[in-house]
Amino acid sequence: MQVYIEADRKSWSELCLRPSSDNPVVRERVEKIVARVKADGDEAIRALSREIDGVEMGELLVSEAEFAEAAAKVSQEVKDAIAAAARNIRAFHEAQMPSPVCLETAPGVRCWQKPVAIGKVGLYIPGGTAPLFSTVLMLSIPAKVAGCPELVLCTPVSRTSGKVAPEVLYAASFCGVDKVFKVGGAQAVAAMAYGTVSIPKVDKIFGPGNQYVTTAKQLLGNREVAIDMPAGPSEVMVLADETAVPAYVAADLLSQAEHGADSQVMLVCTSKDIADAVCEEVEKQTAVLGRADFVERALEKSRALVFSSVEDIVDFANAYGSEHLIISMKDYWQIADRIVSAGSIFLGNFSPESAGDYASGTNHTLPTCGWSRAFSGVNIDSFIRKITYQELTREGLQGLSKTIVEMAEAEGLQAHANAVKVRK
Amino acid sequence: MQVYIEADRKSWSELCLRPSSDNPVVRERVEKIVARVKADGDEAIRALSREIDGVEMGELLVSEAEFAEAAAKVSQEVKDAIAAAARNIRAFHEAQMPSPVCLETAPGVRCWQKPVAIGKVGLYIPGGTAPLFSTVLMLSIPAKVAGCPELVLCTPVSRTSGKVAPEVLYAASFCGVDKVFKVGGAQAVAAMAYGTVSIPKVDKIFGPGNQYVTTAKQLLGNREVAIDMPAGPSEVMVLADETAVPAYVAADLLSQAEHGADSQVMLVCTSKDIADAVCEEVEKQTAVLGRADFVERALEKSRALVFSSVEDIVDFANAYGSEHLIISMKDYWQIADRIVSAGSIFLGNFSPESAGDYASGTNHTLPTCGWSRAFSGVNIDSFIRKITYQELTREGLQGLSKTIVEMAEAEGLQAHANAVKVRK
Repeated sequence: MQVYIEADRKSWSELCLRPSSDNPVVRERVEKIVARVKADGDEAIRALSREIDGVEMGELLVSEAEFAEAAAKVSQEVKDAIAAAARNIRAFHEAQMPSPVCLETAPGVRCWQKPVAIGKVGLYIPGGTAPLFSTVLMLSIPAKVAGCPELVLCTPVSRTSGKVAPEVLYAASFCGVDKVFKVGGAQAVAAMAYGTVSIPKVDKIFGPGNQYVTTAKQLLGNREVAIDMPAGPSEVMVLADETAVPAYVAADLLSQAEHGADSQVMLVCTSKDIADAVCEEVEKQTAVLGRADFVERALEKSRALVFSSVEDIVDFANAYGSEHLIISMKDYWQIADRIVSAGSIFLGNFSPESAGDYASGTNHTLPTCGWSRAFSGVNIDSFIRKITYQELTREGLQGLSKTIVEMAEAEGLQAHANAVKVRK
Repeated sequence: MQVYIEADRKSWSELCLRPSSDNPVVRERVEKIVARVKADGDEAIRALSREIDGVEMGELLVSEAEFAEAAAKVSQEVKDAIAAAARNIRAFHEAQMPSPVCLETAPGVRCWQKPVAIGKVGLYIPGGTAPLFSTVLMLSIPAKVAGCPELVLCTPVSRTSGKVAPEVLYAASFCGVDKVFKVGGAQAVAAMAYGTVSIPKVDKIFGPGNQYVTTAKQLLGNREVAIDMPAGPSEVMVLADETAVPAYVAADLLSQAEHGADSQVMLVCTSKDIADAVCEEVEKQTAVLGRADFVERALEKSRALVFSSVEDIVDFANAYGSEHLIISMKDYWQIADRIVSAGSIFLGNFSPESAGDYASGTNHTLPTCGWSRAFSGVNIDSFIRKITYQELTREGLQGLSKTIVEMAEAEGLQAHANAVKVRK
């Protein structure tokens, strides 16, 4: 990790840059994949599995027998852990459920806003280097809490075993996912956006993925289907002062770095001593970790910054807008209250990112790459729409009629005015 | 309007089709405009105003003098109407403001979710055939209620006067918009997405527009900037039984049809008699309206359907997912409670769409083209992010540690497990 001391504000936009991900080659390939799935549906999916992954797919839908086989392979310890995590995730998302709003804005004019669950939800769970079954919990539990009637999940099979990770299938079944399909990559996103004979067209697609998945979501989002957010490589920023424990901070940075070579970790400290102590710990802990290749490549893209002023620390954290922000500082709530851009914030020395990644109850599907400036992490709102209603009495409409007619006529919309006048 | 009696469910997807809007020529032009603004900023904007609109632009920022001139031109009646509408819109959006959520999900594990306003909001207000100053209210009032610190508005000047409509400037000033820029079309969207010397880069872009604006929002949304929703031509569906008043229904259909030639209006009735009576009224009222060319072209694309079964009426309304849904039926709440896809619902004989378009308090920026399946209309949530926080005690983390370690190890993420183990 390169260390920057009192970096000038002019250099901040460069220091906030993420490893670039806009790849025109990927984009072009994804456009072709999407076009093929749109045109040929299941047939295109099978052909793409053959071409890209060298896997010959039969039935795409996971069968009861496959679910049973998966459940038998998952240890009781993991099952218990899933149940414990699910309890907390469910409780925290239930607490977020919005209530209907009802207001008489003027005499005889009643307005409502009511939450209504999205009908068909599509979840994408990556396969790849780690079977991220925790994401199954993070997406399907809030969907069920919101009341979404239909949950579809797509996930690739392993190239070596030709099967879906058993933990993913167990978690899907545990959380009440209706159908799981053995499809990965951009083709899975396209299938859920357009629908095929096997795979239903959904209203909104959720979940992380590699460059191909993200590009497909960006391409089809707002055109064919809604998406949760434009996800990118994971990232963490740790703010540390003299009350931070270097071994803890190092462990948090490394837990982010092991996600992949394109992950980014940022350390912001109040002194160079702390930065040095953390860097030393990072080296020590890296030596005993698996996935050290990923970790080392991620650390190359990572930065340690030292600012003596709390003002600078807060402003830099907001400028970066980290997906995960760990505040290991004495007055952590005072800092947290001044943060306006972050996905999720971890407070104090005993709130590692892993707690929120798995089990505390917060969601781990969060905006990366500075998108926290405009997007929330996945939460109960992600699975509902809020429909408004209004009921006016004859007198209620009369009370508003002058206002409506005046505005409609000033906008040159005669028929809008007439819809009020005709009701007199 | 063509009338369909007891249309077979197999034909519904065709009957729910909107006038197509995906135009590759528009897309290509927008891509070029966006690239030019990204590369040359203000200079590109001035060149585009010259080329597209034949207008020579000086300063893009609206001056104090221009605001004063506009305020002098707006009648007191319109000013009063704006103030009255604003009161209701503000009240209804204030009532929507979400509260922070706090929950101890397990002993020593506290999780929060807090709403935080988006920092920089960009509003687009079309010029075109009607100066839609009501949209200024619908976007800027909730932004201010949410607490967004910076509101920027782009709107084109009239080709004939070279000025922005005075009502738009008055409304912007009245609602506390910080800066108004005289830029329209795809170039306005690109300017707010990338930022130029004059126009600030924003976090999220809101507002309706023509095909160029919508295409630019779809293109840049999820890649460079967040957007409110993929807006398209406006639409209304009216459900009518024998308690509906044909003259009222006709007036509602026409108030939608006058929006533009690409608007769509749908009538769903319980009997052919009602459909005939409404169609007759539509003809009668059209004869006395301005904008009759728009109206007639919109009506060509519109449909009247007759279903004797309430089941069919509800299912068809949900299949269409109308932006505006007017329920002029006896038991309108019973029907409304079964609607799961609509932008905003208008109940009974005295709740015309115009009420919500201007003054009742609900928002009129709503999902069109079936997007109500996944999107809400603009509401207070549109202007905030919900950030999560967690604070674990040493004991709280210990209580979760087995769960976290078990899951992390099953996912092959050793460093995630280590971030917990190191804290023992």
